[in-house]
Formats: sequence, C-alpha cells, structure tokens
Amino acid sequence: MVTASAPGKVYLFGEHAVVYGEPAVPCAVERRAEVTVEERTEGLRVHAEDLTLDGFTVEFGNGDHPDVDAPETMVEAGMGYVSEAVAQARDAAGVEEVGFEVSIESAIPLGAGLGSSAAVTVAAIEAATRELGVELDPEEIADRAYRVEHEVQDGQASRADTFCSAMGGAVRVEGDDCRTIDGVDDLPFLIGYDGGAGDTGALVAGVRDLRDEYGFAADTVTAIGDLVREGEDALVDGDLERLGQLMDVNHGLLSALGVSARSLDAMVWAAREAGAHGAKLTGAGGGGCIVALDPTDAPLTALDYTPDCEESFRAALASEGVRVE
Amino acid sequence: MVTASAPGKVYLFGEHAVVYGEPAVPCAVERRAEVTVEERTEGLRVHAEDLTLDGFTVEFGNGDHPDVDAPETMVEAGMGYVSEAVAQARDAAGVEEVGFEVSIESAIPLGAGLGSSAAVTVAAIEAATRELGVELDPEEIADRAYRVEHEVQDGQASRADTFCSAMGGAVRVEGDDCRTIDGVDDLPFLIGYDGGAGDTGALVAGVRDLRDEYGFAADTVTAIGDLVREGEDALVDGDLERLGQLMDVNHGLLSALGVSARSLDAMVWAAREAGAHGAKLTGAGGGGCIVALDPTDAPLTALDYTPDCEESFRAALASEGVRVE
Repeated sequence: MVTASAPGKVYLFGEHAVVYGEPAVPCAVERRAEVTVEERTEGLRVHAEDLTLDGFTVEFGNGDHPDVDAPETMVEAGMGYVSEAVAQARDAAGVEEVGFEVSIESAIPLGAGLGSSAAVTVAAIEAATRELGVELDPEEIADRAYRVEHEVQDGQASRADTFCSAMGGAVRVEGDDCRTIDGVDDLPFLIGYDGGAGDTGALVAGVRDLRDEYGFAADTVTAIGDLVREGEDALVDGDLERLGQLMDVNHGLLSALGVSARSLDAMVWAAREAGAHGAKLTGAGGGGCIVALDPTDAPLTALDYTPDCEESFRAALASEGVRVE
Repeated sequence: MVTASAPGKVYLFGEHAVVYGEPAVPCAVERRAEVTVEERTEGLRVHAEDLTLDGFTVEFGNGDHPDVDAPETMVEAGMGYVSEAVAQARDAAGVEEVGFEVSIESAIPLGAGLGSSAAVTVAAIEAATRELGVELDPEEIADRAYRVEHEVQDGQASRADTFCSAMGGAVRVEGDDCRTIDGVDDLPFLIGYDGGAGDTGALVAGVRDLRDEYGFAADTVTAIGDLVREGEDALVDGDLERLGQLMDVNHGLLSALGVSARSLDAMVWAAREAGAHGAKLTGAGGGGCIVALDPTDAPLTALDYTPDCEESFRAALASEGVRVE
C-alpha cells in the first residue's frame, strides 16, 4: 500500500490565453490531494472521502458500469481520472492483469479552478506505479497525467495543471513547453471560494466564439500573453506590488472575455479593498475560486464577511510537487 | 428671462480610449439640466437648486471671491462652468458689460459619468445667448461649451459630452471629429447610480500611466477602439443583443484599465443577472453610474435590491439636444 500526494494550483497569470499558445504561469499551492493505492487481484475499487461532500465508493468489475448513488457526473468525472491513471500505472509497469483499491482524500475544491483533477491524477499515478514497484520521475508523471486529462476531457486538456502539480513551485507553460521557474521562494497566496464551479467546457467555448468573431477579442487574448511575460519578470524580482497590479489587469482582461462572475468579482473586490496587492479569478472562471496576493490576513477577514464567499484560506506556494507520503 | 435645457449622456462605448484618438459613442439620455438666465446690471448671481443635495446660491461681485457655505470644490466646479458659459454668451453677443442671474435645476447626478457639467454648460450658453437676443446653432453651442470645459478642466476635456448634449441622439466622436449617428430611434437605457463619483483626473491619469508602462495596456485601449467600430454597426442595425454583448466586453476592458469599482461591478452584475442585454460603467468610472440595455424593467428591480445602488431609473435616448423651454 502506497500513499502519494500532489498539490493543487492557482493561475498567477494566463489561463484561457494559454489555449491559444500564449504563456501562462500556474503556481502549485499547499492544498493537496492524497491518494492511497493497494494492489488487489482484479478490478478497481475507489473510495473518495472528500471528493464530494458526502464521499462515495465505487466498485468497477470487469467492464461493468459502476453502481453508486452519488451524482452521475461527479462519479464519472472522478472515476474517469482514477481509472485512466491506474491504466497509465499498469502501462508504466508493463503489467496488464492487476486490480487496485484506491482511496482519495482531497482538500482541493472540485472544479473550482484549483486543479483538483490534475492533483488527484498525478497522485494516483505516483501511488499506483510505486505500488507496482516502479519509480517514475516527476516529468514522466506529469506527461502521463496530461494524457489522462486529455483522454477524460475529450482532448481539451492543457499541460499546465498536471505539470504544475507534479513539479511543484511556479511553472511556465507555453504550448507543449513546460518548465519550472527557479528562484521563487514563496508567494503569499490567499484563496476565496464561492462554493461553486464553472462549466469549463462552456467557458472555453465562449472565449473561442468571441475570439473567432471579433478581432478585439483576439487582441485581448494576445494582451494577456504580453502581460504574462511582464509578470514573469516581476515574479523573478519578487515584486509583489507589481505582481498584484498585473493580477488586477489580468482579471479585467478575463472579464472582457466573459469568464468572470458576480461572485468572483465580489471576492476580488473584497480582497483588494482589504489591502491585497492584487486579486484575480483562477482557472476557467464562471464561479469557483479567486486568488489574492497578500502577506497579511486582512483579505481573509474581508472574504469571510463577503456573502458570496463560502470559504477562504491561505495557501502558500507548494515548493514540492508530487511526493510519497 | 430664458430657460433652456440640455440632456445628460451615457457612454454606450469608448470612454477613456477616446482620449487616445479612438472613436467613442456617447448617447444623450432623457435626464436634463435646466438653466434659467435673466439679464441684470452687473455681476453674476447663481442659484443651484439640485446641483448639490441642499442647493446653494453664490453671488459674484466684480472679481470678488464668492462667499458661500457649500463645499468649496462643489462650488468651484459648478461656478466655473457657469461663469465661463456666460462669458461665452457675452462673447457670442459681442457685449461686455452685462450681468446675469442664473438658476440651475439639474436631474443629472453630479460627476457620476452622465455628463452633468456638459449639460449645465450647454443649457447655460443657450439660455444666456437667447437672453441677449442671439441664436446660435447647436454645433456652435457645442463648440463654445467644449471651450468652457477645456478651460475649467485644465485642458482635460473631450468634445464628446458637450457635442452629445448639444446635438442629442447617438453621436460618434473621434478626436475633434464629432458627428451624429442617423437612424437610431430609441435605446432602452437603464441607469444604476451608486450615489458617488469617481475622481476623473486621477482615473484618466491612472490609465495614462498604465498605458505608458505596458504595451498590453496600450493594446487594451486599441481593442476598445476596435470594439467601438463593431458597436457602430450593431447600433445602426438596432441589434440590442449584440450591443449588449459588446457593452459587457467594453466593461471588462475598462476594468482591465483599472477604472471600475466594487459598486460598479455589483450593479453591472445585478443588471445582467436580471436579464439585461448588457451593462457597463459609463464615464470616468471609479464610482458613479452604470448603464444597462433592456426593454423590460427587471434590471431596475434588481438594482433596487442591490446594496451598492442608491438610485436606478430608466433614461430613454434623448433625440433632442439643447432646447429652449
């Protein structure tokens, strides 16, 4: 039996524009998904402790459709990642006839822009390969996890989430080129969570339609890319004030692309007015989380008093990516 | 004694970017400033009924500083426009030694992005010139009113507000080129007002700094200009849905330039979630008004229940500009 964990992430800059080849800077944060894997004779049995509010257990036989009473879409999403992840582990170990008992405990809100599925996938591949006696380097785990997301999300995946979760720290993603950004010690991230989740597919499609229809929307996407390049300099310089300013602008450009939401704007303003250097939505948008930058806890208090905010927490930069617990 | 009135305006598209030579489309709305002028022997006596919540009266002697108990900045702003407006009227009539008694009644919130000062200035020039027996065409009133704003606002004026207020309807402004847009019958504008006002000078300076510092901010300004050109087509086509979509994007681009505010975003979302075709801040931002587009009153109800909204009202397109009452 092996337990592995992997961190969630926030987008410091660049979500959505990254789909069109612009650079993006996701950062791993100290909210982890923990996956425990134990070999069994056959099939796949999955316990998800925190994946939904109530938790559920699903047993796959050989090709049977799982029979559970959790919401169908939730199960399909969660199970898709896990079953593809163990398939990657079987492939890496060169074994075919092996079953797994998998337990997931995740502290990362689902579908809220914090990379929960990538963290579960990365941790599951690490735990399952270790359980089979194979040790992969984090780059290979990242690559295999990307293939899982690509498969489960009908080809709509970005390498950003899985690479960031596997490697930890601040990373730079541009197309298929992923690399870690050295020299970033810590970033005082605060998260506000509205308790909801956006529809990633619809949001990505909305940006695509807008960009196809209007030249100025295409220019807005390009502007985000240029902002990310400025942001990289500020990141290496450790210039929190400048990072915050750029986060604010990035949030506005995302709003222009139609991916913000009332709750996200309310949380962003609460954080800013409480003195945060800057704040923006993170991930696909439409609902979910915002990320703010502030060494003090004042924005957390402000978020706690914001009706649209269900939960707020500090999440330091996770310098470690995937690891065995 | 002559009474003249002139309408306020909303920016359908293009505020801030217009400063950098991009086109903008302000639209006159049915909230008017009414100015009554009566000749007197000398000096200037001004009654402002609705210019502040309490109203005030100021008497200028010959070069004396006025002595009143209203807030200094409010008086200086209001009086500056009126005294420059009557100076324009004296100039147009070719008389020097004439005094005026001026009464202002304005239903346009002050400094809130609805062009209150332009409406007062335009109506004051019309009333004062008529009182002196001179009839100017609206283009000349617009031009003289622009010179007043230019003088009072230390060279920071745009021709947009004064031209729109003098001519009425939907207008197009690009640099010094101002023209009315024909064929626009009505637009179902709704206004939400947070009770406050932004600091126009600071907001304009903030955009300038951002634009000077970052290429992507300059590109954001350019994107607004491109959006305005698309918006003109939608306006002529009477395509409310497209106009609304473009208003939403314009608001996001303005947010990226740092000129939105918590209250403005809250009102914009209230209107959108109540079914408005679109909504955006109008004018300099930082506080003041938003404009939404909807033929139903549902967004007004939503705005009434929005804590950040102090007042909401419908304001149809004002097809008539300045007029004698």
